[in-house]
Amino acid sequence: MEAESTMSASELEYLACCGSTKFAKEMAMASPFPSLKEAITAARDIWFNKVDVNGWLEAFSAHPQIGERSRKVDTSAQWSKGEQSTALATATGSGLQELAEWNSKYRQKFGFVFLICASGRSSAEILSELKRRYPNRPIIEFENAAQEQMKVTELRLAKLFSTKEKAVPSGEH
Amino acid sequence: MEAESTMSASELEYLACCGSTKFAKEMAMASPFPSLKEAITAARDIWFNKVDVNGWLEAFSAHPQIGERSRKVDTSAQWSKGEQSTALATATGSGLQELAEWNSKYRQKFGFVFLICASGRSSAEILSELKRRYPNRPIIEFENAAQEQMKVTELRLAKLFSTKEKAVPSGEH
Repeated sequence: MEAESTMSASELEYLACCGSTKFAKEMAMASPFPSLKEAITAARDIWFNKVDVNGWLEAFSAHPQIGERSRKVDTSAQWSKGEQSTALATATGSGLQELAEWNSKYRQKFGFVFLICASGRSSAEILSELKRRYPNRPIIEFENAAQEQMKVTELRLAKLFSTKEKAVPSGEH
Repeated sequence: MEAESTMSASELEYLACCGSTKFAKEMAMASPFPSLKEAITAARDIWFNKVDVNGWLEAFSAHPQIGERSRKVDTSAQWSKGEQSTALATATGSGLQELAEWNSKYRQKFGFVFLICASGRSSAEILSELKRRYPNRPIIEFENAAQEQMKVTELRLAKLFSTKEKAVPSGEH
């Protein structure tokens, strides 16, 4: 991945939505967007048609394991914590332990972190989904992870847009 | 990729058939096979169900670009040269130039080499197939490449088996 220090402020905002450098650069180039809807349409096209499989893996590797905290303290890590708040609030100690074990099994089989749009899901739901997806062929799980990544990206683009709207109230446009 | 120097002779034979370390190790563990048919069945299961997407990329990266010679002089490079012999015999200078340009375009879009089971195909056929596949989404092309890799692997397993049979004639079993 390109060093984040050489990226523009706009690119870094999009990188926090989806950790593929190519995605961030293409979104920054296509911006500004008149609305969230246009941003999401562009994001879907870039993610599924332009970012290659190495870019998908790059984006997946930017996620902390479900139930684990990221060591980073950037926007992406903060959003990730928020998205997992239901899971963390509903987890028992042994539940988190089981989730950690299955996460590790998953990573060993597929070579990337178990990716799920965790927002609003309990830890039991996440664990059951992980067990359901585990027997899949690697290529199927790769596509599932990319679909989940897109859901996460959409939520984060919405947050990015709402932050921007607060920063520039409509009366001052 | 694990250093080839730590691999067994059997693992190296399978690595020449398909450049994924995991594939080579699993095949060596499952061997010996009573016939080529059983070896191919095992290979298909390992390649599509056990090797993860990083392993697919590792195998793809072991191929020279179509029309280019590998810098390596190992079994895989020799077989590759044989598989491309029709393409090289039918190519004109400008044909090879165009193939090189499209290969480079393909690699830039998808992040891995254009993979096709070249055996018996003319350079014009290969170029036309490259142009047909180029507009595909990255994930579709990733699967196409994996299917082509499997065809190459099957041809190479057949060569490996015929070499072994020559080395140990049936009368001496």
